[in-house]
Amino acid sequence: MSGVLYGVGLGPGDPELLTLKAARLIAAAEVVAWPCLAGSPSLARSIAAGHIREGIREIAIEVPMTEARGPAQAAYDAAAEEIAAALEGGSDVVCLCEGDPFFYGSFMYLFARLSGRFRVEVVPGVTSVTACAARAGLPLTARNERLEVLPATLPDDELAERLGAADAVALMKVGRHLGRVRAVLDRLGLDARAVYVERATMTEERVLPLAEAPEAAPYFSMILVTKGADPWL
Amino acid sequence: MSGVLYGVGLGPGDPELLTLKAARLIAAAEVVAWPCLAGSPSLARSIAAGHIREGIREIAIEVPMTEARGPAQAAYDAAAEEIAAALEGGSDVVCLCEGDPFFYGSFMYLFARLSGRFRVEVVPGVTSVTACAARAGLPLTARNERLEVLPATLPDDELAERLGAADAVALMKVGRHLGRVRAVLDRLGLDARAVYVERATMTEERVLPLAEAPEAAPYFSMILVTKGADPWL
Repeated sequence: MSGVLYGVGLGPGDPELLTLKAARLIAAAEVVAWPCLAGSPSLARSIAAGHIREGIREIAIEVPMTEARGPAQAAYDAAAEEIAAALEGGSDVVCLCEGDPFFYGSFMYLFARLSGRFRVEVVPGVTSVTACAARAGLPLTARNERLEVLPATLPDDELAERLGAADAVALMKVGRHLGRVRAVLDRLGLDARAVYVERATMTEERVLPLAEAPEAAPYFSMILVTKGADPWL
Repeated sequence: MSGVLYGVGLGPGDPELLTLKAARLIAAAEVVAWPCLAGSPSLARSIAAGHIREGIREIAIEVPMTEARGPAQAAYDAAAEEIAAALEGGSDVVCLCEGDPFFYGSFMYLFARLSGRFRVEVVPGVTSVTACAARAGLPLTARNERLEVLPATLPDDELAERLGAADAVALMKVGRHLGRVRAVLDRLGLDARAVYVERATMTEERVLPLAEAPEAAPYFSMILVTKGADPWL
């Protein structure tokens, strides 16, 4: 009998934000797989480290940092085959996923390759969106409000349109787009309603009004914009 | 010294989807508070039950089910005062919140009343959105895709506009709006891309293609619509 592939969300960074289920599955695992940027330590592995037993098999999914998709595709192809071999051998494989596996997670690339051939169970995790809101003390959505999650990579005009219309917006993947996003928010008069959160729940966390955000933002940064239009009950 | 108010997310329903931090805070609590509809058992309390010590003080926040806001406002006013008295007496209070406290959570009403007077810490939880996606085996968003979270209470034309534009949509609070939402999705040709999820991760969970959804949906139901426009890596 083939093993089960578990895609396990680890939450935003604080190891205490793992779910009990994630901690149990990791602690019981004989094989874990985790992604990393080629040549760098794995953030996912570091979040889960306290639960990984010594001496078990670990499959590193080394993803090259290239603009072209081909090299990353090849890395996921190779990782999927290595994981498939373990599953065919009867071992369960626990794949460690930052945040939630199906919310901007690279686990989707393994899921696309393996879910037709093996039983896959996805364990949801705390996303960076609600983690940032919690750390900023900023209620996101109440009652009939609408939340939009947008990548900061969108063109200016689309960003402006969506920021103007939604009740609450989480801008993901801010990184090098910070200056551009800030200009759009300024133009819309929303800059005072925007909060910048960097590495939420990690030890180097920073929560700042957008006006005080640094010039250079890391990849793990987010801007939350809430309008508070609906008066609280 | 006053105590700290903790707003603790419990996740979507499966008690194993509590975070380690939530479990620790609840197990250490001397006072817990939890909401319930007047006359009904508390879902929040039932999710956390395994961690609540016997004999501690429990504050029930009984919210009346009325269209008018006044009676619910009065209930939150009274609960806030009861919690404030405990905090002033030096006790920490752990408020149990289904899902995530700042994502359509009633904790916001306590936060609005108490965060100016007391230290409040919010512990994020797994939301129903990613829980539904996990249980449906449906990746939500990859790379530069956009996710919209919409309440099904929105008017038809606004629903249609947003459903047409977004890459992925989570329709919350489906309940009695199911028939209307289904008609909108049919008209847009999106019905075959829609999945109905009821009570995700709970024992009575149901995951169905929208076409097979029941006529009457409970409040804890969601429709996920994904377009899969961005080919997976």
